Amino acid sequence: MIALTRRYHFSASHRLHAASLSDGENREIFGKCNNPYGHGHNYVIEVTVKGPLDRFGRAADIAGLDGVVERNVVRPFDHRNLNTEAPEFADLVPTTENLAAVAEQRLRAAWPESLPALYRVRIFETRNNIFEIGSV
Amino acid sequence: MIALTRRYHFSASHRLHAASLSDGENREIFGKCNNPYGHGHNYVIEVTVKGPLDRFGRAADIAGLDGVVERNVVRPFDHRNLNTEAPEFADLVPTTENLAAVAEQRLRAAWPESLPALYRVRIFETRNNIFEIGSV
Amino acid sequence: MIALTRRYHFSASHRLHAASLSDGENREIFGKCNNPYGHGHNYVIEVTVKGPLDRFGRAADIAGLDGVVERNVVRPFDHRNLNTEAPEFADLVPTTENLAAVAEQRLRAAWPESLPALYRVRIFETRNNIFEIGSV
Amino acid sequence: MIALTRRYHFSASHRLHAASLSDGENREIFGKCNNPYGHGHNYVIEVTVKGPLDRFGRAADIAGLDGVVERNVVRPFDHRNLNTEAPEFADLVPTTENLAAVAEQRLRAAWPESLPALYRVRIFETRNNIFEIGSV
Amino acid sequence: MIALTRRYHFSASHRLHAASLSDGENREIFGKCNNPYGHGHNYVIEVTVKGPLDRFGRAADIAGLDGVVERNVVRPFDHRNLNTEAPEFADLVPTTENLAAVAEQRLRAAWPESLPALYRVRIFETRNNIFEIGSV
Amino acid sequence: MIALTRRYHFSASHRLHAASLSDGENREIFGKCNNPYGHGHNYVIEVTVKGPLDRFGRAADIAGLDGVVERNVVRPFDHRNLNTEAPEFADLVPTTENLAAVAEQRLRAAWPESLPALYRVRIFETRNNIFEIGSV
Repeated sequence: MIALTRRYHFSASHRLHAASLSDGENREIFGKCNNPYGHGHNYVIEVTVKGPLDRFGRAADIAGLDGVVERNVVRPFDHRNLNTEAPEFADLVPTTENLAAVAEQRLRAAWPESLPALYRVRIFETRNNIFEIGSV
Repeated sequence: MIALTRRYHFSASHRLHAASLSDGENREIFGKCNNPYGHGHNYVIEVTVKGPLDRFGRAADIAGLDGVVERNVVRPFDHRNLNTEAPEFADLVPTTENLAAVAEQRLRAAWPESLPALYRVRIFETRNNIFEIGSV
Repeated sequence: MIALTRRYHFSASHRLHAASLSDGENREIFGKCNNPYGHGHNYVIEVTVKGPLDRFGRAADIAGLDGVVERNVVRPFDHRNLNTEAPEFADLVPTTENLAAVAEQRLRAAWPESLPALYRVRIFETRNNIFEIGSV
Repeated sequence: MIALTRRYHFSASHRLHAASLSDGENREIFGKCNNPYGHGHNYVIEVTVKGPLDRFGRAADIAGLDGVVERNVVRPFDHRNLNTEAPEFADLVPTTENLAAVAEQRLRAAWPESLPALYRVRIFETRNNIFEIGSV
Repeated sequence: MIALTRRYHFSASHRLHAASLSDGENREIFGKCNNPYGHGHNYVIEVTVKGPLDRFGRAADIAGLDGVVERNVVRPFDHRNLNTEAPEFADLVPTTENLAAVAEQRLRAAWPESLPALYRVRIFETRNNIFEIGSV
Repeated sequence: MIALTRRYHFSASHRLHAASLSDGENREIFGKCNNPYGHGHNYVIEVTVKGPLDRFGRAADIAGLDGVVERNVVRPFDHRNLNTEAPEFADLVPTTENLAAVAEQRLRAAWPESLPALYRVRIFETRNNIFEIGSV
């Protein structure tokens, strides 16, 4: 069993704001991330799959893996405003925790049988702020 | 003469759009950066000063340098929308070239005599996209 | 369940020397790290917490997490001599293994109920020398 | 229990080609990695051991660990052509998955009792392409 | 005047060997880089252009710049054996110094008038081994 | 003309303290870097030489360059206390500015005629604090 991790990049903007809270509560909870005009990040997403090697010594068909991630995560999020342009965030605060969960759900929903099991999704919002779902 | 470079970070959103162009021209010139809802980056700004050492072996008072950069660049831009919240970009496309020029002008305007000469301003929009003004 | 990792930095000096060993044994075991005048590092500490998301889509109150780590690890160790200024190392060799253990114990002792479970502490002594406690 | 990870570097060339496949199949499966003249990478290998601390506060004798990795992985692979110069790849496609497996087997075969258990081997083929064996 | 730097990546193999030298001299001068079966690297190339901003606030048409570099440097070198597959190295030792010179000449020969002046070419053979041509 | 840069690492401790100042002035000027027990860093030093290529396509004999830097900078400073163990800092505050100047003077004094001209010395005290002497 080998785990293969691929890193992908996308740049997006977001605003952390919960409709269920007052403006004051939003500012208190989300601080500068609640700025009404938004801000943005260069996100890095690492997708890890895990499985046995095929007879050619590969853990996965990398082109196939890249295609799933590009179509379902990178292209819909890259150079986008997460609040406005990703339907999942119409009612969900686009924290990077939620972004990791949405990315993982999108990948699971589109995951082809030809790929080994999705093992872990990790998103770096910045170099110092990292979110991980799946294996831990 | 020694050059001292300090790195600072801020996260902001922007949209590349020139009011003087049609929507089609904007899309052609700025591509996905013209997305109407904006996107964002983790910017890194490097500020370099250059001068002789003082009698304590310092090229600059680092706390003083940090203060100028924090007050004039990091705080006004961090977790902001550059188009909406930085007055210079009311009529100027917030390309990272222009952002570097604006940052450098802000620093020059506020530069205290106690600091050595401002030598270079460099902004990383992403790890692969770097803009530099001053020394080159 | 999501794991959130935050990275923090501190610079400190240390000397690896066991009082129970002769000078020759110390030199043999700790090599150049036994240098009597000490040396130092830019340490990076990653603190990982793990838990369910709250109703705002957050794995943890980041300001609260930062406060615990700053008060108990970063501030007491940053720009300090670990042998002399951290009481735990009066009788304990400040290897980075022990530093990771001490940091983890300090965090556990001060850990507030409002934060999700502490999952892992990882310290980079250099880019090529990494110590991890908790999850593995 | 503490996990200690050490990073090592080597530069090598390889060609992905399975003798059991036709040239066309090789090109289809391995793409540009099937180029008959080969290509190369700066590989990074992380070796992780895990165990209790000894009475000096060390998870492992680092010089001993470095010696095993240098002799069995770094020196035989560094500045080498993996297909031609590593006997394991006479009949095995030198994918980085197989390289990770070979490196792990070489380490296990040479592992001295004086070192704590080998916990994980991770190889970075590039910054964006990472293979891991052992712990996952 | 602003300098814009873009980073590109390619992986290639090479062997340092001068036909005018004896085998012994080659081994003495090029050391392990003379290994007859070759080895390889993940090269990073930074291309810097310098010029005034256009009326949209851009130092260069990035798509145009990327196209020139992709067509003339990245695609011909990526996943290639430099000795065998780059005609310039038929009679020239593919040191990374020569690779930087060849890359710069290829870029100059294909440089379109629509781009600002080529200012500097920098190649990282590894993180610790960097070659620069043009500005210094 | 090509510039070749090589990166080297050393870990050392220091204390910023000027004997000509009172304790209060030292604390005011050097802040936490004046801590009487010292602290430390993982320094990175980049040494750049510049010259024409020799007939083998090399800007410098890298083994020769490495030897000069190892003997004169890395070995005397690595795992050392700069204040106590580097004679230049008996009367000189070991700021990283002064460390860069001392390193450059040591290199110039020992520079062999067989190497191309020393062009630049750059020291990273941390990733965000960089000092450069020579070319700027």
